[in-house]
Amino acid sequence: MTYCIAIKLDAGLVFLSDSRTNAGLDQINSFRKMMIYEKTDDRFMTLLSAGNLSISQSVRELLQTMSIRDDTSDKVLTIWNAESMFDAARVLGAAVRHIYERDGVALKRAGVDFNVSMLFGGQIRGESMRLFQVYSAGNFIESTCETPYFQIGESKYGKPVLDRVLIPGLPLDEAAKCALVSMDSTLKSNLSVGLPLDLAVYAADSFNCDKVVCIDEGNPYFNMLRSNWGERLRAVFDSIEDPQWFGGNSSVPLVMDKPSPIKKITSPKEKLM
Amino acid sequence: MTYCIAIKLDAGLVFLSDSRTNAGLDQINSFRKMMIYEKTDDRFMTLLSAGNLSISQSVRELLQTMSIRDDTSDKVLTIWNAESMFDAARVLGAAVRHIYERDGVALKRAGVDFNVSMLFGGQIRGESMRLFQVYSAGNFIESTCETPYFQIGESKYGKPVLDRVLIPGLPLDEAAKCALVSMDSTLKSNLSVGLPLDLAVYAADSFNCDKVVCIDEGNPYFNMLRSNWGERLRAVFDSIEDPQWFGGNSSVPLVMDKPSPIKKITSPKEKLM
Repeated sequence: MTYCIAIKLDAGLVFLSDSRTNAGLDQINSFRKMMIYEKTDDRFMTLLSAGNLSISQSVRELLQTMSIRDDTSDKVLTIWNAESMFDAARVLGAAVRHIYERDGVALKRAGVDFNVSMLFGGQIRGESMRLFQVYSAGNFIESTCETPYFQIGESKYGKPVLDRVLIPGLPLDEAAKCALVSMDSTLKSNLSVGLPLDLAVYAADSFNCDKVVCIDEGNPYFNMLRSNWGERLRAVFDSIEDPQWFGGNSSVPLVMDKPSPIKKITSPKEKLM
Repeated sequence: MTYCIAIKLDAGLVFLSDSRTNAGLDQINSFRKMMIYEKTDDRFMTLLSAGNLSISQSVRELLQTMSIRDDTSDKVLTIWNAESMFDAARVLGAAVRHIYERDGVALKRAGVDFNVSMLFGGQIRGESMRLFQVYSAGNFIESTCETPYFQIGESKYGKPVLDRVLIPGLPLDEAAKCALVSMDSTLKSNLSVGLPLDLAVYAADSFNCDKVVCIDEGNPYFNMLRSNWGERLRAVFDSIEDPQWFGGNSSVPLVMDKPSPIKKITSPKEKLM
């Protein structure tokens, strides 16, 4: 399994990935799921991948040299000369389709789904930052300000905190913190998501990125965050009043006058509702 | 979709269910997923169900009158005369199998999986409380003190808080609060889980239960809990230091000396790792 998050804010982009892959519970390895493509002062792109590792590695290998002929301008497009992230995402989609053509039939014969999903975001000089989620069919969707983040892999455990905190105006470091909290919840609940993590934080219009860090068991910040988040969450839980049945002396009673419509069955002959 | 939680503590049992069912996003209805079977001073049992509604309703209807012949004692067992919750769970499993025999072929012909999962817990005089999770095949597992809760349906969003808080020694009202927080996270992230909720809290050795409540949009306690939890979670988030890159003046730097192994690709000719 895998868990990756990519966030697009006014201030920049945040990418976070775990590094665990597993083929069954007894075959667990560490592979990096983040790849950065950079041409200083011209373009910065980051790719995060989930799904079948042989497919995602093949796509990543191909993406460096992949070219497509644009059907309207007849230009040859690569991720290195594309004038928009949208065109770069089209090149990535084409790479996914190319690997499908190469491996799809043999995988199907072996009973393996062609399963890959990717997050691809960045900025090319001349336009704003953009963020895409690319599916197994090579099609993709783009993040908008209403939906400032995408997740791939084991996404559910870590989603509540993202939904509560992320807005486009959030400062970059707060968004990085939010991504790390989301990852912590996922690490706690799913054994097949694991350290080390890779975190990249890109500031808008910088066209390169020096904030790239590998976070392992010894990282002081992540350890502080994990223990503080757990403790303080528990303190918040304790700070909320327990339910007072039938009013008690609480201003917020759990039970009011309204009877529960739950049917109690008290003998085998009684009819259900 | 559905979200149900059942918790077994030293002090008693907590059951919580939502009431939304959907067949596609444009066909959303409210059905109760909780059923209480009670014989005062003798037995208290609660059933929560998820999966195909026609199956779970058929199982619930049948469970009231279902009997099985015990293969060792040759006694006829029902949920009303079983001497253990384990035997009552066997009756429930038999009811699931009976409905499979009745409907399984026709459902398969229509391309519908025989999909049902249930939580069944309670206490029969003469033994301690017990809690079971029953699967589509009618087989089941029992909760132990290491795993004091079961979830069915949309379980992932609400799991982190359960894992952080639930221990067998927790007071009943705190466990009810924990279940409600878990439900709140799920309601926030999945549209197909919805109000009203049904909550039942059973105190050990009482053999009946008057703490049964239907929680709708107007419930003061649940509204207080939702708004306080959201606000205070956000305050905890804000209270944790933002990452300080390259040390800064933080005692817990995000980046230390160790370089990141993430490969940056800077031209199309470069080889990947």
